[in-house]
Amino acid sequence: MKEKLTIIKVGGKIVEEESTLNQLLADFSAIEGYKLLVHGGGRSATRLAAQLGIESKMVNGRRITDAETLKVVTMVYGGLVNKNIVAGLQAKGVNAIGLTGADMNVIRSVKRPVKDVDYGFVGDVEKVNAGFLAALIRQGIVPVMAPLTHDGKGSMLNTNADTIAGETAKALASLFDVTLVYCFEKKGVLRDENDDDSVIPVITPEEFKEFVAQGIIQGGMIPKLENSFSAIDAGVSQVVITLASAINEGSGTVIKK
Amino acid sequence: MKEKLTIIKVGGKIVEEESTLNQLLADFSAIEGYKLLVHGGGRSATRLAAQLGIESKMVNGRRITDAETLKVVTMVYGGLVNKNIVAGLQAKGVNAIGLTGADMNVIRSVKRPVKDVDYGFVGDVEKVNAGFLAALIRQGIVPVMAPLTHDGKGSMLNTNADTIAGETAKALASLFDVTLVYCFEKKGVLRDENDDDSVIPVITPEEFKEFVAQGIIQGGMIPKLENSFSAIDAGVSQVVITLASAINEGSGTVIKK
Repeated sequence: MKEKLTIIKVGGKIVEEESTLNQLLADFSAIEGYKLLVHGGGRSATRLAAQLGIESKMVNGRRITDAETLKVVTMVYGGLVNKNIVAGLQAKGVNAIGLTGADMNVIRSVKRPVKDVDYGFVGDVEKVNAGFLAALIRQGIVPVMAPLTHDGKGSMLNTNADTIAGETAKALASLFDVTLVYCFEKKGVLRDENDDDSVIPVITPEEFKEFVAQGIIQGGMIPKLENSFSAIDAGVSQVVITLASAINEGSGTVIKK
Repeated sequence: MKEKLTIIKVGGKIVEEESTLNQLLADFSAIEGYKLLVHGGGRSATRLAAQLGIESKMVNGRRITDAETLKVVTMVYGGLVNKNIVAGLQAKGVNAIGLTGADMNVIRSVKRPVKDVDYGFVGDVEKVNAGFLAALIRQGIVPVMAPLTHDGKGSMLNTNADTIAGETAKALASLFDVTLVYCFEKKGVLRDENDDDSVIPVITPEEFKEFVAQGIIQGGMIPKLENSFSAIDAGVSQVVITLASAINEGSGTVIKK
């Protein structure tokens, strides 16, 4: 039987404010067994860019990453936010290690081809080296992954944190019994978007199709769930969508076969 | 017999300019056997601080590190400079991993006590965890260490790169046959400071005392050499002071027993 591994993805909002970060570090530390954290940091990147007179351009929720913006996100995601989390976890006795995709060649990506939009130095994940990650994890080390990859030719690339979490979960699914937790600003996937307590506890592929047909699940939630099912198809045991403050509560929406 | 490990320390000037960085990456890649790189990044930190309206205050060549400056150095050393080197080495087939002292708790330090000067968030090295570093190195992974440590209580600390290199070399000396190379702006320790070719090829402790007594070695070179002899006393096989462009040439000044 494969050992359990919990992969938590948290957005920038949680890790960039001291009070929510402290709560997250405490909750994450309390997770038993093997674990891995993937974080964002977009707000801090936007703030630093503004201070440096660099305009933040977003298309479809993704940051257009020119050479100067790449420096900003490398500093903020790989330096400030990542090391702040790592030092915070160390203080709680969690032996964390901060990683970008370049470190140990953990995630190599390709610069996104220019179609309608030139996203600049943005990477689409090509390969996650599960072996190196698994070796660290089995030593009791906890990877803390920044949303950055590299192209194998010397350049860092900006890569969406949800994608990092999903691709890492898929790559590790052959070695561990993986639960992937996407922290969300709601308690889970809601049946009624005006009722925060209308969380759908479990969604299977059949139910998903039905919810979409009925218009209960719509908009940005559709690709999020499609990605979750793609992780399940690739061997991830379950995907959970929940509040960051509830990662130890077993609440939220569980996506499974 | 212990296996050889080469530890190279390069200052910011070398790694912050593209042409010298590319040369260094090529030269470092060519070093055979186990190796580890420690880098600075002070010029980039000073530049970013200035862009953010933060004044860089130096005392005795050390940066006074207030809370805002700590963010700047964490971004620049841990993010920008470190990941740029790591991605560059990966492109040359060197399986590099970027580390601060917080990562895997590799170097824990204590915030420097306030005496005549309050250096702020500056760390004096307390413990280097040689075991974790050695495990990585023996897997063929090449640590790239930023001049940052942590206090074990959740805070990063700014730590001099020469000190990181020296303390890491000492800690690894019981496990490897360590050569520590300090890259310098001259070809080595000079007999005549106005003659760049007057390199002293070897200095033993007895010769050092004599050179100081004669006034041949003076000023900032004295503590640099004292630190080198302290590394030798702690088991480091030899310390070399040379040009960054000459790390594979066997030139420079060799400090040994």
